[in-house]
Amino acid sequence: MTRIDINADLGESYGAFQVGEDEKLLEVISSANIACGFHAGDYNVMDSTIQLAKEKGVAIGAHPGFPDLFGFGRRDMSMSPEEIYRAMIYQLGAISGYCRVHDVQLSHVKPHGALYNMAAKQKEVAEAIAKAVYDFDSSLILYGLCNSLLLDEGKRLGLRVAAEAFADRTYTDEGLLTPRSHDHAVLTTKEEIEKQVLNMVEYGKVTTSSGKNIDLNPDTICFHGDGLSAFDHAGHMKRVLEEKGITVQSVGE
Amino acid sequence: MTRIDINADLGESYGAFQVGEDEKLLEVISSANIACGFHAGDYNVMDSTIQLAKEKGVAIGAHPGFPDLFGFGRRDMSMSPEEIYRAMIYQLGAISGYCRVHDVQLSHVKPHGALYNMAAKQKEVAEAIAKAVYDFDSSLILYGLCNSLLLDEGKRLGLRVAAEAFADRTYTDEGLLTPRSHDHAVLTTKEEIEKQVLNMVEYGKVTTSSGKNIDLNPDTICFHGDGLSAFDHAGHMKRVLEEKGITVQSVGE
Amino acid sequence: MTRIDINADLGESYGAFQVGEDEKLLEVISSANIACGFHAGDYNVMDSTIQLAKEKGVAIGAHPGFPDLFGFGRRDMSMSPEEIYRAMIYQLGAISGYCRVHDVQLSHVKPHGALYNMAAKQKEVAEAIAKAVYDFDSSLILYGLCNSLLLDEGKRLGLRVAAEAFADRTYTDEGLLTPRSHDHAVLTTKEEIEKQVLNMVEYGKVTTSSGKNIDLNPDTICFHGDGLSAFDHAGHMKRVLEEKGITVQSVGE
Amino acid sequence: MTRIDINADLGESYGAFQVGEDEKLLEVISSANIACGFHAGDYNVMDSTIQLAKEKGVAIGAHPGFPDLFGFGRRDMSMSPEEIYRAMIYQLGAISGYCRVHDVQLSHVKPHGALYNMAAKQKEVAEAIAKAVYDFDSSLILYGLCNSLLLDEGKRLGLRVAAEAFADRTYTDEGLLTPRSHDHAVLTTKEEIEKQVLNMVEYGKVTTSSGKNIDLNPDTICFHGDGLSAFDHAGHMKRVLEEKGITVQSVGE
Repeated sequence: MTRIDINADLGESYGAFQVGEDEKLLEVISSANIACGFHAGDYNVMDSTIQLAKEKGVAIGAHPGFPDLFGFGRRDMSMSPEEIYRAMIYQLGAISGYCRVHDVQLSHVKPHGALYNMAAKQKEVAEAIAKAVYDFDSSLILYGLCNSLLLDEGKRLGLRVAAEAFADRTYTDEGLLTPRSHDHAVLTTKEEIEKQVLNMVEYGKVTTSSGKNIDLNPDTICFHGDGLSAFDHAGHMKRVLEEKGITVQSVGE
Repeated sequence: MTRIDINADLGESYGAFQVGEDEKLLEVISSANIACGFHAGDYNVMDSTIQLAKEKGVAIGAHPGFPDLFGFGRRDMSMSPEEIYRAMIYQLGAISGYCRVHDVQLSHVKPHGALYNMAAKQKEVAEAIAKAVYDFDSSLILYGLCNSLLLDEGKRLGLRVAAEAFADRTYTDEGLLTPRSHDHAVLTTKEEIEKQVLNMVEYGKVTTSSGKNIDLNPDTICFHGDGLSAFDHAGHMKRVLEEKGITVQSVGE
Repeated sequence: MTRIDINADLGESYGAFQVGEDEKLLEVISSANIACGFHAGDYNVMDSTIQLAKEKGVAIGAHPGFPDLFGFGRRDMSMSPEEIYRAMIYQLGAISGYCRVHDVQLSHVKPHGALYNMAAKQKEVAEAIAKAVYDFDSSLILYGLCNSLLLDEGKRLGLRVAAEAFADRTYTDEGLLTPRSHDHAVLTTKEEIEKQVLNMVEYGKVTTSSGKNIDLNPDTICFHGDGLSAFDHAGHMKRVLEEKGITVQSVGE
Repeated sequence: MTRIDINADLGESYGAFQVGEDEKLLEVISSANIACGFHAGDYNVMDSTIQLAKEKGVAIGAHPGFPDLFGFGRRDMSMSPEEIYRAMIYQLGAISGYCRVHDVQLSHVKPHGALYNMAAKQKEVAEAIAKAVYDFDSSLILYGLCNSLLLDEGKRLGLRVAAEAFADRTYTDEGLLTPRSHDHAVLTTKEEIEKQVLNMVEYGKVTTSSGKNIDLNPDTICFHGDGLSAFDHAGHMKRVLEEKGITVQSVGE
């Protein structure tokens, strides 16, 4: 590859509760997934994050989640596909309002947390999300986990999709994420992360927990916006990649 | 007048909490103000109410309120004009999402409860609301209380506005609503309501609490959607008006 | 039997959202299960419901649920047993505050909705609830579904328990509730309900969906407080039972 | 004085949103004011904070606030005195639940944010809070701002009260806090804070913004738990005070 997208989850503060280092992260990423007020984010944070992202030339995406502020959208919820569709439309509409008044394009959609994980494995959930994105605006790019059902459903509807890999998560032989409950589900050192990201970007591969080197071919790499070191890791990798002649730019550019 | 708009507040249920007789009301009104999830309403109710309104040919409006589910948006809140602007954009965006996927026009905006009342008297609040509506979509019609600052601010920005009167509320000599804390702030009998609405629609007048007959000239009459008898009163008045050759139709028609 | 408890779920309004006919129900029931602000109820409703129940001489119970206002506590939630324990203590504490200032006894605890159903079948959930009740106040009576694990766990800890049957729900051959997704899960006519309640109270039996007459031996019969006809059914049954010489009184009397 | 209480606001996280350095602060303070789930805090945080405070031998107090998670209880709210009373009982009950199961005493009550400020100046609010504390448990110590109406109302009812001063806030000639909107409302350097606290504790005085040295006589000094340096400042002052032979201990000891 000669180009890659670096994305992070932003705008996840809520009222007086501050989360993340959004301003710094916007200096080093090419795509921002902005929370839409259900699992995090609010009408103030969304507005200011979109203005900042526009200013920095970072592609703006919706980051819709389950309506679960307490659980930060990380808990599975009992919602029918129809409800998920409706909750998607609400959040896509809300973020589009800010894009409209700030005269900037909404470029992509990446579901959050438990909704993202369920969409990777449950066809009905993937379908509801892909259909909501398509019905709302068929020019939006749908982000989903590499090898997930969400990408399949998006493609089936004719959406442009982006396969996402995680800089600091380890992988199973099936090309899916090692569950967080397992040991060594997360990479923590700069060296491990650098090695994994370069393998992903330069060769389209990932070394799984069992030691196999399998195909992954991501379009975009996620650095967690709520991690303390997301900025450090993403900034470092951006420099390393650019030194190797790989352009960091959003999927839609 | 030969025509008038009849509006009601709809979609004010929340989750399992049921409010109003929306389906029946949609048979007799010409404009529906649909709650946007802040003071009431949710991603399910909004979707189904918009579908119903579309089906019945009723004009669809946003009914944004303060973020105060517990108080149903009826309590004054400490929010800066900038925050109010942002909260407006969020809600306008959200409801527009459903209009987009159901391929129906959003026609108007009527603030709810305490936000509506503050916008009648406080210039900064009126300005924030009018500016949000204008920035979001300058073709939207802004509903405000007859003789309110909200109408002034809307007109100043170049928005089309609709002056609203209330079928069952009494008026002061200044042409404003008698505060609910006063005796006889609300009309309760069908006879009183019929007399007041006919005076408003046929002559553009209202008889104030002190007995004066003053100009009011409303473009739209509100029947409270949360009242038990909103449907009875609105249905009755629609028939009475139509018998007199007055057409009940939305402001934008 | 010569006595039975009639219970209903009360205090399930929230802010401006009104639910149920609490005042009328309190005339005909012997035990009130009062929502504690998580799935429904709030600091105003709890206070006034407890005052009303005290005035009417109805036994006051806590009706704790999942923290899910939107879903009215009827959706399964991803909470660990430890979290359930903690959420129980919060709600038991809150309702006890009102009992303390109104100088009235808290007599029992009945979990609500999905929490109640999960406690019937999942040992870990039943254990967490029973332990919370026991640790908070070991003199409280724990209400649980007839034949449920919740009753087993309560007894194991030494709590006094009350086996609950539902006036308007049908039963499986195992003595559990027919799932609501099935046809005929709910009885709707006064005749069916009367027949079932009399069978439960006079003979300690229930006729299952397949026609078997099995033992049930309830200590308390629930009439749903949120149903439109809970008052009608409960009032009717109270009269019928009393005519037969069966006393309607709370479990602890 | 030979003794003083050092207090801080704790347990102000919510779900996944982390606030404060509670564990470190508990090493250096004598009284913890623990949020009760309305402006911040939740059923998990309350439980674990109370366990930690018990372990460290720190006096446990309730820190009730307005039901305003978004605004962190810092916004004035439209609530009647009766509603404030009821909201107080709910929160006092909830925190008492944890004290009961962990077999530890609830020692004091300090209202939070806007509720605290309104209680300093509005008699009706002060009265509602003091009455709630008294009715709930007349042995609780009521914390209020030095020279506030809250202390007056508490004393009038016969409650033990503790006059609170702020380590890092400046004072007016009336002995009240300089509003945050003014310049120099907050002290930021360790030197300024040390000088002010020593003046408060050794001489019962404070130097006002205009330069006067007036009486203050606080029983307890607050170090803000949500500030980044609350631990640094409180820890430093504890050492300085103890070197001078002044014991740091809770009001009730």
